[in-house]
Amino acid sequence: MSVLIVGSIALDTVKTPVEEHADLLGGSASYAALGASFFSPVKLVGIVGNDFPAAEFDFWKSRQIDADGVQRVEGKTFRWSGEYAWDMNTRETRSVALNVFEHFRPALPESYRETDFVLLANIAPALQSHVLDQMKRPRFVVADTMDLWIETTRADLDALLPRVDLLILNDSEARELTKETSLIKAGRKIRKGGPRYVAIKKGEHGALLFSEDEFFSCGAYPLEDIHDPTGAGDTFAGGLTGYLASAKREPTFSDLRRAVIYGSVLASFNVEAFSLERLRTLTMEEISARYQIFKAMSEFESLG
Amino acid sequence: MSVLIVGSIALDTVKTPVEEHADLLGGSASYAALGASFFSPVKLVGIVGNDFPAAEFDFWKSRQIDADGVQRVEGKTFRWSGEYAWDMNTRETRSVALNVFEHFRPALPESYRETDFVLLANIAPALQSHVLDQMKRPRFVVADTMDLWIETTRADLDALLPRVDLLILNDSEARELTKETSLIKAGRKIRKGGPRYVAIKKGEHGALLFSEDEFFSCGAYPLEDIHDPTGAGDTFAGGLTGYLASAKREPTFSDLRRAVIYGSVLASFNVEAFSLERLRTLTMEEISARYQIFKAMSEFESLG
Repeated sequence: MSVLIVGSIALDTVKTPVEEHADLLGGSASYAALGASFFSPVKLVGIVGNDFPAAEFDFWKSRQIDADGVQRVEGKTFRWSGEYAWDMNTRETRSVALNVFEHFRPALPESYRETDFVLLANIAPALQSHVLDQMKRPRFVVADTMDLWIETTRADLDALLPRVDLLILNDSEARELTKETSLIKAGRKIRKGGPRYVAIKKGEHGALLFSEDEFFSCGAYPLEDIHDPTGAGDTFAGGLTGYLASAKREPTFSDLRRAVIYGSVLASFNVEAFSLERLRTLTMEEISARYQIFKAMSEFESLG
Repeated sequence: MSVLIVGSIALDTVKTPVEEHADLLGGSASYAALGASFFSPVKLVGIVGNDFPAAEFDFWKSRQIDADGVQRVEGKTFRWSGEYAWDMNTRETRSVALNVFEHFRPALPESYRETDFVLLANIAPALQSHVLDQMKRPRFVVADTMDLWIETTRADLDALLPRVDLLILNDSEARELTKETSLIKAGRKIRKGGPRYVAIKKGEHGALLFSEDEFFSCGAYPLEDIHDPTGAGDTFAGGLTGYLASAKREPTFSDLRRAVIYGSVLASFNVEAFSLERLRTLTMEEISARYQIFKAMSEFESLG
């Protein structure tokens, strides 16, 4: 089944303690779409300016990513520039130029409105809701969010949550949203506020997944070197939702467990190179091999 | 098989944001011994003053903990007092009185010297080495350590490490010992410095286990409320080593995986009440039930 993905499409400049690269393809929707495309066809919704490389549209076409929903308008593409600290964990935004993104009002092509799986990648919750308003009963809605929306548009976020099946957020965002220090309490509390499932990403510590009566915990792939963490969370969300859509059914908790592992696998590859470079050459064989490593590193025997 | 455990035995005063209790049984060896005793007989080595409650010796006897190696001397028992912050994670030491512990020089009873499994619970590495010097070829040596020894007695610690089969330490200690931010790099680097296996405890994020060519990662039990974190690491080490000794063979990596889970289970119970109170009433049935919850929360299906 297809996945509709809406989010930002950007041109990034990223500086790490070791390297700096400019004009990289970035944005939440770019990472999420490529992550999802390994498993399912994608219908992409976003906006770019006339400085956006035409080659990316060709690339999307080659990867079962339908870009009919990407508006190409007069002006400049959204630009973001950030710098990572020596630990590759904390980052500082150096500049943001919203450009054409400032007046983005997603309008879905008619052919998009009956898509079964939806990933509302990280953008303002009001825009995420506006996309849902245009859809005919999607089967499963995944939403990602960030600290900015928790702090500045909390009412919009609260209005969105009951319309979401799975909310994805990171550990500090979960704590901020609930004012709970325990991630277990935070995950359970968020679930009560709307989404049937909650996934909390913990970076190098893996991820937690909550349902009403089940709980799943997994570690992160044991990477020694991270070259560019940008987009790891978006890739996680994309891989996860793409996998769910490929199962072609109402997701079970078992499907969600596997989806979290696939999301983690995709994210672990993504951080091995700048921008989407690693994902561009990634193969299903490599994904499967790393899935099996996740399996091996998590296993222990049952009680005799 | 038996486990020889050496470490501190203390009387603690613990304050949390909610409660304060004085004169509690504490110390690394107290927690570790009770944790191990669920799986294997324990030979305890330590020192107490004549203010130490005689009832504890009766309790140890009732729990297959041989206290012939506990010296009872004139003077006061080691006392520690600490206070936990509102997040129950950071703690401040309010006072330490070493008392009889100041001149502790562990001397093993003859009957202890051929014990197969050894847990050097958290005390100065020179004392840990001194215990090993008195032993006849133990089969498997586990050592715990802490930031204090990394900072103040690094040479002693470095001398101990090659004599250890499994080193247990927490995430911040692993980073401090290696000057690596990545725990994966840190774990691998420590292993190269001596111990065949390294276990890194990550509190609410679970634990990592490294061998030369295998890796294991597990989450923490999803506890919502922690009443007293004191001794969680010591209980983890005790449960882990006690389980290994019960397997009655040279531990395999599979044994170590299960041992890490048992250690985590024991630690998760320990923090549910002050001091060792929860461990005193804990049953094997409760331990097995929580082991199964760990299993259920970690599982996901293999690739089709």
